[in-house]
Amino acid sequence: MRVLGIDPGSRITGYGIIDKTGNRLHHVDNGAIFTDSSRDFAARLQKIYQGLAEVIATYHPDAMAVEQVFLANNAQSALKLGQARGAALVAGVNSGLPVFEYTALQVKQAVVGHGRAAKEQVQQMVKALLNLPEIAQADASDALAVAVCHANSAGMNRILRSAK
Amino acid sequence: MRVLGIDPGSRITGYGIIDKTGNRLHHVDNGAIFTDSSRDFAARLQKIYQGLAEVIATYHPDAMAVEQVFLANNAQSALKLGQARGAALVAGVNSGLPVFEYTALQVKQAVVGHGRAAKEQVQQMVKALLNLPEIAQADASDALAVAVCHANSAGMNRILRSAK
Repeated sequence: MRVLGIDPGSRITGYGIIDKTGNRLHHVDNGAIFTDSSRDFAARLQKIYQGLAEVIATYHPDAMAVEQVFLANNAQSALKLGQARGAALVAGVNSGLPVFEYTALQVKQAVVGHGRAAKEQVQQMVKALLNLPEIAQADASDALAVAVCHANSAGMNRILRSAK
Repeated sequence: MRVLGIDPGSRITGYGIIDKTGNRLHHVDNGAIFTDSSRDFAARLQKIYQGLAEVIATYHPDAMAVEQVFLANNAQSALKLGQARGAALVAGVNSGLPVFEYTALQVKQAVVGHGRAAKEQVQQMVKALLNLPEIAQADASDALAVAVCHANSAGMNRILRSAK
């Protein structure tokens, strides 16, 4: 079972792909799509969409996982982030992937074991869990973290059951 | 020259298509894509994307126009709206359309002649300008308004010039 985790953003969209075989997790790839801030926003959304569409075409994941976003303020930032998420999520559903959302708390609990972990702890645990040679780029690491969360979640187990 | 105006929203996405021939505007079609709130948000984004992709495939517009959004508060609403806009805009750029953004002020000035027009005035003017039998559905009317704004804007004139 292969999971694509994503961390969409208007400037950097991280992605991470992991395989789960039995109870073991294997790292497949991770990276980030950087959008050129000098280009207009529609072109940036297309770069996110096309970049993820290429990742999906290359690695054929079975599901997409993304962290839920809760923002207390700054509606303009939320709108920009929302646009990037919209482009990224459509790349997934257009390829037929089911999309799963997890809260930051769920991701931290899945990766570190408790919900109060600092960002650096999560990055270190992603590196350790997936035997990465070094800590991945920050957004790619976040994408791997939500992929790990999905791989170890009930939603994942539901898919595995329905596939049998 | 054919313009597709859109008014994206997470529940209703309006669209309107107009032709400009010389200085005359002609209404081609308008409508709204309703997303089922009982379905998950990724499926709703896909419906927006697919709905607009079908409109584009049917009518072959030369450009897409959308109103800029400025929101003072409520980041969660902005995120939802942003996701819908992201899905809608990617449907345009994936079909090769240039995308143009206009402020609410620009749209009102283009349609009514001044920037302090009430929503009802804009709807009445869209109906009159395009010889509609009745006022279009609210979101479709907003989509037609931004299409009219683009058709009468400098951006439109630039496209016409470069096409010669």
